[in-house]
Amino acid sequence: MPDTPPPATTADAPAPLRYAFFGPVGTFSEAALRTVVPDAPAEAMASVDATIEAVRTGRADVGCVPIENSVEGGVPATLDGLAAGEPLVVVAEVVLRVSFVLAVRPGTALADVRTVSTHSHAYAQVRRWLHAQVPGAAYVPATSTAAAAEALALELSDGVPAGFDAAICAPFAAQRFGLDVLAERIEDREGAQTRFVLLSRPGTGPAPAPTGDDKTSLVVFLREERPGALVEALEQFVTRGINLTRIESRPAGDALGRYCFSIDCDGHVGDARVGEALMGLHRVCEQVRFVGSYPRSDGGHAAPGNGPSAEAFAAAQAWLDRVRAGAAG
Amino acid sequence: MPDTPPPATTADAPAPLRYAFFGPVGTFSEAALRTVVPDAPAEAMASVDATIEAVRTGRADVGCVPIENSVEGGVPATLDGLAAGEPLVVVAEVVLRVSFVLAVRPGTALADVRTVSTHSHAYAQVRRWLHAQVPGAAYVPATSTAAAAEALALELSDGVPAGFDAAICAPFAAQRFGLDVLAERIEDREGAQTRFVLLSRPGTGPAPAPTGDDKTSLVVFLREERPGALVEALEQFVTRGINLTRIESRPAGDALGRYCFSIDCDGHVGDARVGEALMGLHRVCEQVRFVGSYPRSDGGHAAPGNGPSAEAFAAAQAWLDRVRAGAAG
Amino acid sequence: MPDTPPPATTADAPAPLRYAFFGPVGTFSEAALRTVVPDAPAEAMASVDATIEAVRTGRADVGCVPIENSVEGGVPATLDGLAAGEPLVVVAEVVLRVSFVLAVRPGTALADVRTVSTHSHAYAQVRRWLHAQVPGAAYVPATSTAAAAEALALELSDGVPAGFDAAICAPFAAQRFGLDVLAERIEDREGAQTRFVLLSRPGTGPAPAPTGDDKTSLVVFLREERPGALVEALEQFVTRGINLTRIESRPAGDALGRYCFSIDCDGHVGDARVGEALMGLHRVCEQVRFVGSYPRSDGGHAAPGNGPSAEAFAAAQAWLDRVRAGAAG
Amino acid sequence: MPDTPPPATTADAPAPLRYAFFGPVGTFSEAALRTVVPDAPAEAMASVDATIEAVRTGRADVGCVPIENSVEGGVPATLDGLAAGEPLVVVAEVVLRVSFVLAVRPGTALADVRTVSTHSHAYAQVRRWLHAQVPGAAYVPATSTAAAAEALALELSDGVPAGFDAAICAPFAAQRFGLDVLAERIEDREGAQTRFVLLSRPGTGPAPAPTGDDKTSLVVFLREERPGALVEALEQFVTRGINLTRIESRPAGDALGRYCFSIDCDGHVGDARVGEALMGLHRVCEQVRFVGSYPRSDGGHAAPGNGPSAEAFAAAQAWLDRVRAGAAG
Repeated sequence: MPDTPPPATTADAPAPLRYAFFGPVGTFSEAALRTVVPDAPAEAMASVDATIEAVRTGRADVGCVPIENSVEGGVPATLDGLAAGEPLVVVAEVVLRVSFVLAVRPGTALADVRTVSTHSHAYAQVRRWLHAQVPGAAYVPATSTAAAAEALALELSDGVPAGFDAAICAPFAAQRFGLDVLAERIEDREGAQTRFVLLSRPGTGPAPAPTGDDKTSLVVFLREERPGALVEALEQFVTRGINLTRIESRPAGDALGRYCFSIDCDGHVGDARVGEALMGLHRVCEQVRFVGSYPRSDGGHAAPGNGPSAEAFAAAQAWLDRVRAGAAG
Repeated sequence: MPDTPPPATTADAPAPLRYAFFGPVGTFSEAALRTVVPDAPAEAMASVDATIEAVRTGRADVGCVPIENSVEGGVPATLDGLAAGEPLVVVAEVVLRVSFVLAVRPGTALADVRTVSTHSHAYAQVRRWLHAQVPGAAYVPATSTAAAAEALALELSDGVPAGFDAAICAPFAAQRFGLDVLAERIEDREGAQTRFVLLSRPGTGPAPAPTGDDKTSLVVFLREERPGALVEALEQFVTRGINLTRIESRPAGDALGRYCFSIDCDGHVGDARVGEALMGLHRVCEQVRFVGSYPRSDGGHAAPGNGPSAEAFAAAQAWLDRVRAGAAG
Repeated sequence: MPDTPPPATTADAPAPLRYAFFGPVGTFSEAALRTVVPDAPAEAMASVDATIEAVRTGRADVGCVPIENSVEGGVPATLDGLAAGEPLVVVAEVVLRVSFVLAVRPGTALADVRTVSTHSHAYAQVRRWLHAQVPGAAYVPATSTAAAAEALALELSDGVPAGFDAAICAPFAAQRFGLDVLAERIEDREGAQTRFVLLSRPGTGPAPAPTGDDKTSLVVFLREERPGALVEALEQFVTRGINLTRIESRPAGDALGRYCFSIDCDGHVGDARVGEALMGLHRVCEQVRFVGSYPRSDGGHAAPGNGPSAEAFAAAQAWLDRVRAGAAG
Repeated sequence: MPDTPPPATTADAPAPLRYAFFGPVGTFSEAALRTVVPDAPAEAMASVDATIEAVRTGRADVGCVPIENSVEGGVPATLDGLAAGEPLVVVAEVVLRVSFVLAVRPGTALADVRTVSTHSHAYAQVRRWLHAQVPGAAYVPATSTAAAAEALALELSDGVPAGFDAAICAPFAAQRFGLDVLAERIEDREGAQTRFVLLSRPGTGPAPAPTGDDKTSLVVFLREERPGALVEALEQFVTRGINLTRIESRPAGDALGRYCFSIDCDGHVGDARVGEALMGLHRVCEQVRFVGSYPRSDGGHAAPGNGPSAEAFAAAQAWLDRVRAGAAG
């Protein structure tokens, strides 16, 4: 994860960029955004759709939303938001470990916890821990993990009763709302990760420059349903030795059986190999949406790749130039 | 959709098959199941996971769950339930048009409707219609479309107040709970479909026999991350002229970047071409799960296919047999 | 076949181009060359090797040799001459129908023919006709069809006895040596064709410009022996929708089992699709030799091609340029 | 090379097999045949065509002809003989190092050699050695290397003057005709090899059984001219991890531009992977000719192959059988 803001956010534009994220305040989406811009003002939006819409309409310049989770898979609202409507581009990605804490108002001890609140998804991920550590605790549903934390904080500040003793939320939310953490890493299954993307309108700032370790996101609509149409498209990557890091089908229309493909691959649109593959897709597919090239921040590294090196691409171009100029080839 | 029960359910087994579905009573899942077994006793389960678990443990012999929706995409719980755990097979598929009605207790007129209740997903799909036809109506969330309908029915039978005037639910639910329908097809976007599958333990009944228009479901785990690993697997279908009707990646593990692929293709495991493709996948993939061959019921038909015909497969086998026997080839 | 000389031969160079051909005078190779430059001085060389060598050393600027025959297949000396040694490029191709005549000194009648002479290959191709039309004639071998014709002509001019009554040769040779033709099209199997190429040193004249119906010749050395190495190379053509018109393996080294491939494909090196394919080959192969792009003259036309059009290539490049410039893609 | 006769020749048939080879006596073809059947009577035929015809008509049961040379490439007559006409199968292959000796009548010393005779191809391969070791020697053409050796032998036995002092021939020929060898390995370029095949009518004897290191020969006619038709055919090998050891295009018809492909691959028709690939070719090609499976004797070994092992093929078949029987897959 970059410790400086990504290129799109450092443009020496007269006005500072405005940020939005999938709220409420204290969610993992805000935590992800804060790893990039720790202090910039940012608006919490009610949903992924609303966050995307805020960027489209210009209410925000950059929006932060989750795109996939290592347990749940892709986030449909984000994938579909990128596949249709006015074009948006990913300008950065952030990967966060999904970890929960048991947060309480200062002064509450574990023995005092009779009721806990959180979003039902989060509840499902800590059930075993709760059963072992807070056996009798009742569960109070909340609309988000952050909302549960905020309710405790409001009880503290405004005296409004939260209706429960503890919140299960992100460490970030506990810290943001001034809560005490009674236990951390309470998730039953360790190691889950969520990947977030920062979205922007094309041209809002300079596109992220190649860093040598980048990813490119695309949405691809096949031209027809037939054996081999998908392979023909994917062959465009294989032929150039480009590794796919994610491929996900999404419904493309109202009827079953029509799909588009949300694809991430290694490399930057400015790279010769990626440029060639994109042109190849453009030729054989119904439609290709370029959804951005940005520095890789998912903790992995570009697959070693048994494909040709960047030098081989440059050498091939130089050779072709010589041949076209009439030299011996 | 078959108007007779599928093979798995017609075995002249001594004991009748027991059914389960993703409940509650009156949901689309029950409606789907009823197209296959109109009258058999069937248990409503609390979730997709619970339905799948009921089949695995033997509490039910056949379970009916949604697997994909033409707007929302794949149903993660179903896809993941088929990809891991004790093996299950699909023995039939049912495709339903997703359509909503405005249901009320007998006697209620449209002008009387001040409050409506339904699941939030359904509410999102009829919002424009409501705004136009029942402008001032307040929305009361429900845990499912069927639960809203049932609440109205309970008010009718037991006098327990539902807390709202109308339910937005499936036509099937209105009928099941004895409600009046004030308006039908009220969804804002027409034509959405959901595909359901009937799951069984392998060997519970006879597997569905080839009908000439079948589908086969698989889960495929690639051996390694490299350019071309997915293409190499898909090539197994292309080489035999087999059309894919669905491909969906799902997370395969705790970390990002590892996927398995849920795949439906044309044809039956008993077909030469499908058998060969399955063997090819078995050889080049880390793991292949066979998830069933069953009659196609999705309203489509097998893609015309520019691949070789079944006759060409039979002719090739006969030719090979002759050559192996020492005849001229 | 162009009725004007190809570009390489029309350069307004101070010195006229010098030509060579696989002799002797009157062979099909000279006939092929004469369709391009009817009157230019041209030297007959003793062999294909000698013709190629004459171009390499600069003794000639353009050499004409046969490259393949529709019955015999590729001409090894030509294929190997292009695959190794100092680079040469094809600047034009000529396809001739292989047809033979029975040529005699003026005054000789068919009834007078007791002995016929020609090259043994040609003799094999007219045997049935001879048996039927000149039943008792004895056969006298000659080193080439043209040599047989020339011997008759020498008897005429210098009184040196040829030692036979008739020659079986190309119509061109009969005409060139002032002989009478007693019968034409005497070949037993009609329709055979030979394809000739005009070779030049790269840069000798301007390379042939794209005409919209061109061919490109290559020699490709694979990097390794393994399943798929050849397919990986050929995939570079398929991915860009380029049709191969000829592919021929040739030994590449002293031991068996190592081959290089002599390939002709549709299109011109200046075309986007061909340029991309050449770069792709350059990246995945041990070595690629560009052997020229030149107007198609083989009577065929570019395969309709289910690949993308030239417009699609241009559109893809324009789209990539826009995307790289930061516009919406 | 097997030191026991190949299966086809060891059948306990009542009548012994009759052999033919591309003659005359003493050629490399006879030498190749003798490595398999040292003593069996064998007839020298005048040409490759005549040898093949002798097998077709039943005059011989097994014929030995050259099929490719590491310098000259494929032998057209053999390739075309296998591609058309009544089917024949290869039952064994023999690879010989092409090496020449300078052979003389007993008593002739190197200093006495004033004239040498051999076939023009052989002469071309020893020219440098002759120039260095027998500087002034004149060259007398012969119709074959063996014919030159035989002429010397006849001078010895019958007193018929050969017309030259020394023959350049195979070591085998010198030995066969009782000549002295003044020098061996006199070829200018070392290491050239010729591969010979033993041909039979299908069913003449038992086909060679799998040995674990076999080759299979095919002739493949593509269905149509289009980008990818050849790749589609070759993909049938790649998908099953089968290495090609030779691929050679040959004209298939009277006009240019139509080819068939003579292909050798690793493996035996009885192997699962080869059987599957052959069936795949049969389905996608206009025509496939099976030209035999036989033990590999070319000094190489099957390419390590990154394809699945024979065990993986067996495991895949067993898995499919289980799945088809209704077990969990």
